[in-house]
Amino acid sequence: MKVVQCVPNFSEGRDTEKIEQIVSVLKNKDNFKLVSYEPDASYNRTVVTLLGDPYAIKDAVVEMVGMTTKLIDLNQHSGEHSRMGATDVIPFIPIKDITMEECVDIAKTLAKEINDKYHIPIFLYEEAATSDDRVNLAKIRKGQFEGMKDKIKLEEWQPDFGNPEIHPTAGVTAVGARLPLIAFNINLDTTDVEIASKIAKAIRHSSGGYRYIKAGPAEIQARGIVQVTMNITNYKKTSIYRVFETVKMEAKRYGVNVTGSEIIGLVPMEALVESLEYYLGLEGFGMDKVLETNLFN
Amino acid sequence: MKVVQCVPNFSEGRDTEKIEQIVSVLKNKDNFKLVSYEPDASYNRTVVTLLGDPYAIKDAVVEMVGMTTKLIDLNQHSGEHSRMGATDVIPFIPIKDITMEECVDIAKTLAKEINDKYHIPIFLYEEAATSDDRVNLAKIRKGQFEGMKDKIKLEEWQPDFGNPEIHPTAGVTAVGARLPLIAFNINLDTTDVEIASKIAKAIRHSSGGYRYIKAGPAEIQARGIVQVTMNITNYKKTSIYRVFETVKMEAKRYGVNVTGSEIIGLVPMEALVESLEYYLGLEGFGMDKVLETNLFN
Repeated sequence: MKVVQCVPNFSEGRDTEKIEQIVSVLKNKDNFKLVSYEPDASYNRTVVTLLGDPYAIKDAVVEMVGMTTKLIDLNQHSGEHSRMGATDVIPFIPIKDITMEECVDIAKTLAKEINDKYHIPIFLYEEAATSDDRVNLAKIRKGQFEGMKDKIKLEEWQPDFGNPEIHPTAGVTAVGARLPLIAFNINLDTTDVEIASKIAKAIRHSSGGYRYIKAGPAEIQARGIVQVTMNITNYKKTSIYRVFETVKMEAKRYGVNVTGSEIIGLVPMEALVESLEYYLGLEGFGMDKVLETNLFN
Repeated sequence: MKVVQCVPNFSEGRDTEKIEQIVSVLKNKDNFKLVSYEPDASYNRTVVTLLGDPYAIKDAVVEMVGMTTKLIDLNQHSGEHSRMGATDVIPFIPIKDITMEECVDIAKTLAKEINDKYHIPIFLYEEAATSDDRVNLAKIRKGQFEGMKDKIKLEEWQPDFGNPEIHPTAGVTAVGARLPLIAFNINLDTTDVEIASKIAKAIRHSSGGYRYIKAGPAEIQARGIVQVTMNITNYKKTSIYRVFETVKMEAKRYGVNVTGSEIIGLVPMEALVESLEYYLGLEGFGMDKVLETNLFN
């Protein structure tokens, strides 16, 4: 049985009613599971995690994009997270009995269906990218919704599906396939986003940090804190605990504290076990000793 | 599908050849899994963990007892862990779709079969106990192999199966059913077992510590360390991290360090997740976010 993870991000994280309407088309469906949907008010964005049959997921995501197109107007949207579409990005991630190539195929099929149905231009990214310039999502999204009106008309930024014209309210959407990652945010008890920015620079690969960390700062104004928000793109090589302890260490020099953290979406059990092995100094431990059933139901 | 965990302990932890011979009858069997076998040279004891169909496990354990009876002579045995039989104790633990009552029935069936076949007297304990005095294994085992010759002849210590006479080389065996527990040992960088003893007293329920901790000291001479060895009988009420951090805190006053720990046998994923939530200050986390499949095979 083929299993993919699919993590659509849509640009509404505040209006509960709209969020519920959008995810309603993903609930109680056959052959896949709505694992979670995590609205973030500061980001004004919701991350949805689906797990299961790739084709059942694809069909449901088409429906979901219909809802986001109907309910979200990016001309009225602001938030801490950069975005270019009502449905901003839809990655497929191979989990079980499925190759990356198959995930790329599904991404392309989905991209075509969305464009045919809703006339939203699509950029393929990461493993599905049609050129080196389009591998990195941040590069595609640069300029965001507001800048995309003109950017999409440039020769080198013609969309992979659709005409070089953004959808007037839903913008453009990135669809792709990629390796799994862990989305990990660490909270700092300060309102100074500059500190989060400096710590993000210290830990991320692009500016000299850990090989498998992409990181940036974020302000969570509602809580009066800032975050170092990151993707761990290979937890076997760069562990959760290591980056967490490094952020604590760096925070000290600015006189701020790490007050907590959050994982968005799924995390493999193995990544958790590895970090706990560190904290407890566990010897001779392994995944074979972990009982997946809860003992005390 | 009914699933039990069964954790036979046998009294050989040094002679690799004998250990291999004993566990060989548990390997590659249908309908259950040999999860692990963990010999401990200091304890001179091996803890076996089986998971699967209760009846398949019962039949294999009868075979295993045949091997321990053949290979182990308790008259020649010494070790850090108290013991009274070649196969010292065999608990059944309900895991899935099975009641405690059924586990008690299986324990009794196994007890009868072992006694019929090998003439080893059996004490039923914990949930299978036939009197209040026999609930606690430590109470049954008191006096150990050497003292059991006389103890078993006392009116109140007649075995539940068999004659009041120990097996000359294999002693007696306890068979029972119990709730799951986590067997957790914490290492201290000292040879002074008195310190482990004091810390064990500080954390265990019977002397004023945590409600769901049973603990004692152990010397690991081969490594020049001591251990606080414990059972966590309800990890939902007394967490792994809490007892670990408490032992660290207590160790400080004796100027010794906690250098590591080990979990013997199985541990439910939920117990690990709960402890990691503490160390990372994870917010909004839950078991539904844990992906059991390894993402990077």
